[in-house]
Amino acid sequence: MSVYGAQRRDRPTAEPAPSPGARLRALLGGSEPAVLMGAHDGLSARVAAEAGFPALWASGLCISTALGVRDSDEASWTELLEMAARVVAASGLPVLVDGDTGHGNFNTARRFTARVEQIGGAGVCLEDKLFPKMNSFVGDGHELTKIGEFCGKIAACRDALADPDFVIVARTEALIAGAGLDEALRRGEAYRRAGADALFIHSRQSTVSEIAQFAREWQSRLPLVIAPTTYHTTPMEEYVKLGISGVIWANQSMRASLAAMRKACESLRRDGPAAVEDGISSLEELFSLMRYQELAEDEKRYGDQAPGIAELVATRKPGS
Amino acid sequence: MSVYGAQRRDRPTAEPAPSPGARLRALLGGSEPAVLMGAHDGLSARVAAEAGFPALWASGLCISTALGVRDSDEASWTELLEMAARVVAASGLPVLVDGDTGHGNFNTARRFTARVEQIGGAGVCLEDKLFPKMNSFVGDGHELTKIGEFCGKIAACRDALADPDFVIVARTEALIAGAGLDEALRRGEAYRRAGADALFIHSRQSTVSEIAQFAREWQSRLPLVIAPTTYHTTPMEEYVKLGISGVIWANQSMRASLAAMRKACESLRRDGPAAVEDGISSLEELFSLMRYQELAEDEKRYGDQAPGIAELVATRKPGS
Amino acid sequence: MSVYGAQRRDRPTAEPAPSPGARLRALLGGSEPAVLMGAHDGLSARVAAEAGFPALWASGLCISTALGVRDSDEASWTELLEMAARVVAASGLPVLVDGDTGHGNFNTARRFTARVEQIGGAGVCLEDKLFPKMNSFVGDGHELTKIGEFCGKIAACRDALADPDFVIVARTEALIAGAGLDEALRRGEAYRRAGADALFIHSRQSTVSEIAQFAREWQSRLPLVIAPTTYHTTPMEEYVKLGISGVIWANQSMRASLAAMRKACESLRRDGPAAVEDGISSLEELFSLMRYQELAEDEKRYGDQAPGIAELVATRKPGS
Amino acid sequence: MSVYGAQRRDRPTAEPAPSPGARLRALLGGSEPAVLMGAHDGLSARVAAEAGFPALWASGLCISTALGVRDSDEASWTELLEMAARVVAASGLPVLVDGDTGHGNFNTARRFTARVEQIGGAGVCLEDKLFPKMNSFVGDGHELTKIGEFCGKIAACRDALADPDFVIVARTEALIAGAGLDEALRRGEAYRRAGADALFIHSRQSTVSEIAQFAREWQSRLPLVIAPTTYHTTPMEEYVKLGISGVIWANQSMRASLAAMRKACESLRRDGPAAVEDGISSLEELFSLMRYQELAEDEKRYGDQAPGIAELVATRKPGS
Repeated sequence: MSVYGAQRRDRPTAEPAPSPGARLRALLGGSEPAVLMGAHDGLSARVAAEAGFPALWASGLCISTALGVRDSDEASWTELLEMAARVVAASGLPVLVDGDTGHGNFNTARRFTARVEQIGGAGVCLEDKLFPKMNSFVGDGHELTKIGEFCGKIAACRDALADPDFVIVARTEALIAGAGLDEALRRGEAYRRAGADALFIHSRQSTVSEIAQFAREWQSRLPLVIAPTTYHTTPMEEYVKLGISGVIWANQSMRASLAAMRKACESLRRDGPAAVEDGISSLEELFSLMRYQELAEDEKRYGDQAPGIAELVATRKPGS
Repeated sequence: MSVYGAQRRDRPTAEPAPSPGARLRALLGGSEPAVLMGAHDGLSARVAAEAGFPALWASGLCISTALGVRDSDEASWTELLEMAARVVAASGLPVLVDGDTGHGNFNTARRFTARVEQIGGAGVCLEDKLFPKMNSFVGDGHELTKIGEFCGKIAACRDALADPDFVIVARTEALIAGAGLDEALRRGEAYRRAGADALFIHSRQSTVSEIAQFAREWQSRLPLVIAPTTYHTTPMEEYVKLGISGVIWANQSMRASLAAMRKACESLRRDGPAAVEDGISSLEELFSLMRYQELAEDEKRYGDQAPGIAELVATRKPGS
Repeated sequence: MSVYGAQRRDRPTAEPAPSPGARLRALLGGSEPAVLMGAHDGLSARVAAEAGFPALWASGLCISTALGVRDSDEASWTELLEMAARVVAASGLPVLVDGDTGHGNFNTARRFTARVEQIGGAGVCLEDKLFPKMNSFVGDGHELTKIGEFCGKIAACRDALADPDFVIVARTEALIAGAGLDEALRRGEAYRRAGADALFIHSRQSTVSEIAQFAREWQSRLPLVIAPTTYHTTPMEEYVKLGISGVIWANQSMRASLAAMRKACESLRRDGPAAVEDGISSLEELFSLMRYQELAEDEKRYGDQAPGIAELVATRKPGS
Repeated sequence: MSVYGAQRRDRPTAEPAPSPGARLRALLGGSEPAVLMGAHDGLSARVAAEAGFPALWASGLCISTALGVRDSDEASWTELLEMAARVVAASGLPVLVDGDTGHGNFNTARRFTARVEQIGGAGVCLEDKLFPKMNSFVGDGHELTKIGEFCGKIAACRDALADPDFVIVARTEALIAGAGLDEALRRGEAYRRAGADALFIHSRQSTVSEIAQFAREWQSRLPLVIAPTTYHTTPMEEYVKLGISGVIWANQSMRASLAAMRKACESLRRDGPAAVEDGISSLEELFSLMRYQELAEDEKRYGDQAPGIAELVATRKPGS
């Protein structure tokens, strides 16, 4: 008889927990917009989970920035994926992973998506720009990919997944590219028919107006997801009214981090030790957030000197 | 209505496929010894799967060798894990992953094991030596870890797994370390009680005798696994008689590869172009094994010009 | 004649730039304590460089935290190394990389160190604790490694380096482990004789007193490095007086980031969009820090439409 | 005074060893064609070095195959780079790294190239196809990239390198794509003017004729490199006559490995233990190739019990 763990095999089979995809799907299908907080590494993911956000956005811009590179496919897709895996592991939340353009064609897109599923992600978001892409807030050279090519990516991803609940979000950059509302609607509809589960309609205007117009014409054919980075003053009620399903705060956490590190570095540089503890978290807070205490307790359970373990050490050889 | 894939969500829920762990567990519980072929990268895994082996061993020695380093923890545990993931992905078979000593303590061991589960591995094998370890066939300085410490590793791994069928194999190096049969039995029994699912008893003698002796005294308390690298002349029937559950051909594929590459390099160096095609696979064979044709077919399904895709391109905007 | 770049080969050979190691060595040999700012990813490194710090500390605690794991060897050494490489690449500064215990024995330590050199690091810091280690600020179970073993690591690292200026910092945890001043001095001297270039004497007292005592007895046998995390109120002048060569602000930037992300998440969660821009950096600031403009300019130089490039397109075939 | 290593700093400055790039450059400038042996991991690299090849080709096809994926950008560029780093580290030879299409645009290409330089590579080879590419021996859908775009990549790579001797090889797929000899010549000339150091002219005909025709018209404007995979029967003298500078045996070692592993797996599967040792290398040969003996010797130098180390342990604290 096993002392540890093996009882697990004998327990009555419980209803399996909902998959990450199922959890995200439920959130997007709720009566209120689901709020997805942007995260870019394990720490930001842990912080967002602690604050009570129900889901996360593993942002390509923010992960790239954390890695020290530009959001123009300077990081490889596996580098982005590894950081997304950190976000998933550290949060325990359903995470929508920014898949950029799918990093090539239908084949690279589905390979990326299958890996997102493997690391425990809840969904992937693909956007209809050319590879290598440039961040949507930078410059005016945003070229859209052909509709057919993008539909092929969606369809291939769909077919590559094990969990039918895994969420595929199609993001159209038609408004970013200046292609107009009709093109955005046409693309949205094509992507829906290709198998997307939700549509991310992106805008970089300072007001919600083009999003609102789109939402009214879209008529909830699929859940709509938005990232109000530039039109952030719009109150949440407006999104409820527009029938928005998901609101992504894509990069605010990282921008908060940037401002704070800058301030800390500048004061330290200028004022030296006197400024060191100014408005920063204590080590104790850090250790508590990262659950160092749990490891100490595990040491008491699994360590050499743990009671159950010590008993095993006294084991006699079989037959003696 | 979605053209591609979405029907997947509507299909009647099938009985879920057995997990990799369940498949390996079934093999080890069969009436004949399961044969696990060693693999060290995606290609060797694909070749072994094609040859019909039912399960694979992702060998630490062979992965290290492929990476160009020594089997003495020169590769990091994530480097080993990434290659093991290749073996899993390329074969589709249940893979027992060599976890060496667990790369530290109970905490590193369970983290490694949980990652093996995440990449789709069927089981992990941990050995009771000190970290950093030296390959069991090299030198005489093999020190065993404390029994309690190793039991703690097993127990912690057990509790860190999601799938109760995932297989934990405890490998004792007691015979390698010259600690004797009684110590091997005592350790085996302690590991069993700590939660191991199978016991790997390792020997580097040129005959099966000490393995046979062990097996007779062990009396099938847990499935026994062996790697007859040095006592390879023993016929399979002997293992059946001894009640062995798993036979690992740990490094033969890699050693075949080494001999062949040496020969190819030497002839090429000596004889030049004349020697190039001597006994090597053709590119066609390679492309067939790696399923390039499937990609060409997928192109016809998901490519821009695929009929179903082309239809989506003609999509009108909603309402028009 | 080449239009682009090739002139580089023909330029008169300039005095080669000092290596990262030489730059760090010079800083530690300066008349004032060099200040090394802690960094944990590309962004924090860029911020610290922008603030004018002359060198960085790629902190094991902070990198682990960013990765979402505990500073107890939960990240593999290659995962730590990859993040350290981000710090180096994003800052352009000499970076002292936290090597923890060397991740095993003399062989793993020198392999890690050689890789630090390869990624452009300026130095490595090894500490005399057992692997897996626990962060020095957590708990009381800090066991020191044997002196001989640690000296072997230093010596092996020394011999594995290509650049003789690369800096090896030996960190003794004797005071953390409660082993006393004499033991700390004895170890410092042994490490010096084994080939260390500097000694990191670590303390977690809330005052500088034990560091001061050590420094007075040490008498500048080697440059002394400290991390005044807990005794942060000590003014810089005190360190000058004590002859300290390097002061590491190991984790303040990360702790600033943590506090800020927490605040941002909490306000966003509570107040929604209204709180979004509260005290965070703008996207423009981010893009400026990450030099997006440079990429746009490079596009004008290397893009398809760049004048020099367009001229090449008109190239006729040789002979025509 | 340091016992170990530190003397290194005091030794008279030797003439620095030639860089990997300089070594490859010299080989390509020799009077006979340099032979570059293909390698795909650490083991194949070590074998090729042992056989006496002067330089290696880190083949994209073979690395992809070893990873278990197709040579159609299924592996990310960092995954390919990591394996190329294995080839470099395990061989000690100048390695020309297959850079495929540069994995995107001029920016991704130069980032890849700079990383190749960082891992100690001697050169990079970029090819003028679209991303994602398909292996040149597969199918007929090989589309060439625009000349200007490819020239921009070459120029950007040139400018991103630290070592002016690092070799940039431009590979034109004009013949593979069926674009004809004139287009191949036109492209070669444009690439030369953009800063390429050598031209790789690729053909998949079964005879050398189109290569020969090209070489005659090219007239050694730049060193020519070829990979006679399909026209392998051509004797070396022919290449001398044509003024070829580099001959790459791109995938023969891997194909030898494949044939051998297949044979080993099939015999093992069919004949069991009896077939195990049939024509494979011994463990001793493996350990010798991988230099396990050196590690044992290092243990005597750096281990706890090494004489020089033991002496350090006896160190007294300073002043005592």
